[in-house]
Amino acid sequence: MFSGRLVPIAAERANWGSKDHQLSPEEIILTVNAVAATSATDPLVRTTVERRDVGPRDVLIEIRYAGICHSDIHTVRGEWGKVPYPLTVGHEIVGVVTEVGASVTRHQTGDRVGVGCMVNSCRECDNCKAGQEQYCLTGNTGTYASVDRDGTVTQGGYSTHVVVDEDFVLRVPESIPYEKAAPLLCAGITTYSPLSHWKAGPGTKVAVVGMGGLGHMAVKIAAAMGADVTVLSQTLSKKDDGLAFGAESYYATSDKETFKTLANTFDLIVNTVSAPIDMAAYLGMLRLDGTFVSVGAPPEPLPVQVFSLFNNRRSFAGSSIGGIAETQEMLDFCAERGIASEVEVITADQVDEAYERVLKSDVRYRFVIDIDTLR
Amino acid sequence: MFSGRLVPIAAERANWGSKDHQLSPEEIILTVNAVAATSATDPLVRTTVERRDVGPRDVLIEIRYAGICHSDIHTVRGEWGKVPYPLTVGHEIVGVVTEVGASVTRHQTGDRVGVGCMVNSCRECDNCKAGQEQYCLTGNTGTYASVDRDGTVTQGGYSTHVVVDEDFVLRVPESIPYEKAAPLLCAGITTYSPLSHWKAGPGTKVAVVGMGGLGHMAVKIAAAMGADVTVLSQTLSKKDDGLAFGAESYYATSDKETFKTLANTFDLIVNTVSAPIDMAAYLGMLRLDGTFVSVGAPPEPLPVQVFSLFNNRRSFAGSSIGGIAETQEMLDFCAERGIASEVEVITADQVDEAYERVLKSDVRYRFVIDIDTLR
Repeated sequence: MFSGRLVPIAAERANWGSKDHQLSPEEIILTVNAVAATSATDPLVRTTVERRDVGPRDVLIEIRYAGICHSDIHTVRGEWGKVPYPLTVGHEIVGVVTEVGASVTRHQTGDRVGVGCMVNSCRECDNCKAGQEQYCLTGNTGTYASVDRDGTVTQGGYSTHVVVDEDFVLRVPESIPYEKAAPLLCAGITTYSPLSHWKAGPGTKVAVVGMGGLGHMAVKIAAAMGADVTVLSQTLSKKDDGLAFGAESYYATSDKETFKTLANTFDLIVNTVSAPIDMAAYLGMLRLDGTFVSVGAPPEPLPVQVFSLFNNRRSFAGSSIGGIAETQEMLDFCAERGIASEVEVITADQVDEAYERVLKSDVRYRFVIDIDTLR
Repeated sequence: MFSGRLVPIAAERANWGSKDHQLSPEEIILTVNAVAATSATDPLVRTTVERRDVGPRDVLIEIRYAGICHSDIHTVRGEWGKVPYPLTVGHEIVGVVTEVGASVTRHQTGDRVGVGCMVNSCRECDNCKAGQEQYCLTGNTGTYASVDRDGTVTQGGYSTHVVVDEDFVLRVPESIPYEKAAPLLCAGITTYSPLSHWKAGPGTKVAVVGMGGLGHMAVKIAAAMGADVTVLSQTLSKKDDGLAFGAESYYATSDKETFKTLANTFDLIVNTVSAPIDMAAYLGMLRLDGTFVSVGAPPEPLPVQVFSLFNNRRSFAGSSIGGIAETQEMLDFCAERGIASEVEVITADQVDEAYERVLKSDVRYRFVIDIDTLR
């Protein structure tokens, strides 16, 4: 049940980012329970966050589960730039609709829904019009730590409720349990989008680098698409899982022979690892017209020897989440193929501990917070 | 007229590369006039080189013109690795067929023909079978400084004659003058291939970085394909030429405003410059799903910030010359559209001077050696 209370938003909370918007008195908001970071180093705390009132085109969602993404950790620790503390992160959100605005047509009370990495975009640029809101040319509005179109700073899903424009709310098919659906909203779409864009399917050879939250979804999705999937992981410790998820082969990247054995092999390599890697070695595994696409990104630039792109006319690309329509397509695809994320459910008090385990790659394969433990 | 004489090849000339082939007495060869490098620093010298006898599948070509490519300079100066001195370079070769082997079916005496950057490949690997001999998985045989399938070191086109397998000899359409056709065999195909592969054409925006030998051909070909072409050159000194070659716009990269003005603009950027560049700045000019393809390569790795690939799902690719069938397609395309290279014809004694001018970008736009001055 919704447990928020109505209070005017503190105008000073809107001081992050480029806009300087003073909320008018009628822009009332909801205060709801949440877990927040107060600095780059302190433990997370239980607190409250404000949500804007449900506008005509908004949906109020009672959150059931929120996944923990590596990006959450990068963000709260200040590794990706200045942070508007206190900040509630979380962009793998699933729950149930408890209220809709007067003009909402896409969702209704009781619907099982999800919210991913963005909650708005300009809707007017070429990319938005092409259904690629994630690449909005004015910048999409991130689910947390972004300045929303109304000037407020967005707060994420480690929280009991969230208010989101209906156009950025996805339908979660009945057949996917809430907790297993949550990671699909980031890990799922982040890997589905490049696999779909670069046409993974029957007859294509796909490698997935890394067997974490993103990697395990990449394996499942690529296999479900019909591709011949190889996992490239540091060690063979998760080999049984990888094969069970649908991979045909599994190689350790700690073994230099791997790169020789697999030279000129793949049509597509999806790199889910954020650590710096030896680009020449990975590019060397691409066959003619193959693409190495990074969905993880080290903060430091990667040195790329152009000669290693010449052979086989190779490409090095980036891909960032997916568009809203494509995210819905991914959820429906997963439901149809009976795939979802492997999760470990935790309480709201276990997030700090979970972060440490994520950093040690000690999770199979995604932590998901049971938001009932926050009510 | 052919002026060679028959002598046995010196076996020690075949000591470069991985193969150690001893020629048998019947593998007789032709000695012909040539210009060669004897070291990384000495001036080129007039000398002779040996050509193998015309085999059943070979074509003997009396060379008329040979273009000077920047790669020639990199090679003879040892900037791209160990060099088998004395070496004759040149891989933009045009001439007339004066003799054909018994089994030759594709060419006959008197034909106008050309030879580009490769003279052989394995013919058996997936890439060769796909007509992409330039990406032969065992390595194609370069027109110079390579070990040919018979174990000899290949010698290039700064020479009066060359013997080449018929499958690697192109037909030069009648309408293209020899001297203007020569640079098409490298500069032409090197730019045509990525423009064709990444579908430059009506409705696409293409930028060409650099207005040298490759760049000027990229502009002509992209414009002939129907693309909206922008030149990105260090200065505006060649602007009039660029527009005359078919470009719609011309910007100086020395002006930082260029990168802001052209942010998110191009479907394809063809980089013909070998000097290190600021990748983030150039990638920022790509629109959704745009590709930055390098056909020039600095010897040093380029630092690539992966985040700059995320926006607009950008790709950074490499492309190397083109396949044999595609090279013929390019020659026919140029003939049909009435385009060819802009050249400055020099004598065989002016090559050193021409090299210095190439290094200063002081040529509009390709030096071509009149091989009659070598006879």
